[in-house]
Amino acid sequence: MILLGLDPGLGTTGWGLIRANGNRLSHLGNGQLKTDARAPLPARLAHLDAMLAALVSDHAPEAAAVEEVFVNANPQSTLKLGQARGVVICAVARSGIDVGEYAPRLVKKSVVGTGTAEKAQVHAMVGRLLPGAKIAGEDAADALAVAICHAHHLASAQGRARLR
Amino acid sequence: MILLGLDPGLGTTGWGLIRANGNRLSHLGNGQLKTDARAPLPARLAHLDAMLAALVSDHAPEAAAVEEVFVNANPQSTLKLGQARGVVICAVARSGIDVGEYAPRLVKKSVVGTGTAEKAQVHAMVGRLLPGAKIAGEDAADALAVAICHAHHLASAQGRARLR
Repeated sequence: MILLGLDPGLGTTGWGLIRANGNRLSHLGNGQLKTDARAPLPARLAHLDAMLAALVSDHAPEAAAVEEVFVNANPQSTLKLGQARGVVICAVARSGIDVGEYAPRLVKKSVVGTGTAEKAQVHAMVGRLLPGAKIAGEDAADALAVAICHAHHLASAQGRARLR
Repeated sequence: MILLGLDPGLGTTGWGLIRANGNRLSHLGNGQLKTDARAPLPARLAHLDAMLAALVSDHAPEAAAVEEVFVNANPQSTLKLGQARGVVICAVARSGIDVGEYAPRLVKKSVVGTGTAEKAQVHAMVGRLLPGAKIAGEDAADALAVAICHAHHLASAQGRARLR
């Protein structure tokens, strides 16, 4: 199963693509989509949407996931993030792909084994769980972490389904 | 020129369509797009996106406008609004239509003549400026108000351009 993890942002959106076969994971690709900070908001959102649509059409992921948002203390940042996040989720959902949401604590737990892990630990573990992956940056690493969390969640859901 | 005003929201998005010929305005249509509060967020955003895309394709507006956001004290509401607003702006911008943004104070000033007008005054004036319009609700009235503001702005920009 091909899974797409996403870390939405107006300036930079991280993405990570993995193949999950039960608990066996392999890396397919990752990257960071950037919009021009000097362009007006509508043009930036439309650009982000077009890049996401191309990603989905090139790689045909079967499921996707994002982190639940840590709501920022700065309401203007929250609004900006919300606008980008809406476009990112919508661009994937429009193609009929389910988009899961996971609490940051759960993502850390899936990748490192503890919900209180530091970001650097999470990134290091992402590299170990997906050997050979060249990771484009922090946002791409976060996106791969969400994809791994989604894979674990789906694998254990299937395990539970088989036990019943 | 056909102008589309929008008042984005996750539950209800108001829209209003007017024809502007210099300072002469006429009403073409208005309504409120609703998403199912019981559906998951990605499905609601994709539904909103599809309704906007249909609206744009049915009515072929030549320009669009939204109000700048009054940032809510509740960060979860700001995030929710941001997500819907991103999708609404993107759905229009994706079709190559410019989307203007106006401060709420400027919208009130355009419609009523003063930036401190009450909401009820704005709605009453929208009805008087667009005789014959049956207004679908508060969000549709807000959307028509933004469209009127955009029309005034474009008319005076053209006036200024001619003077130069």
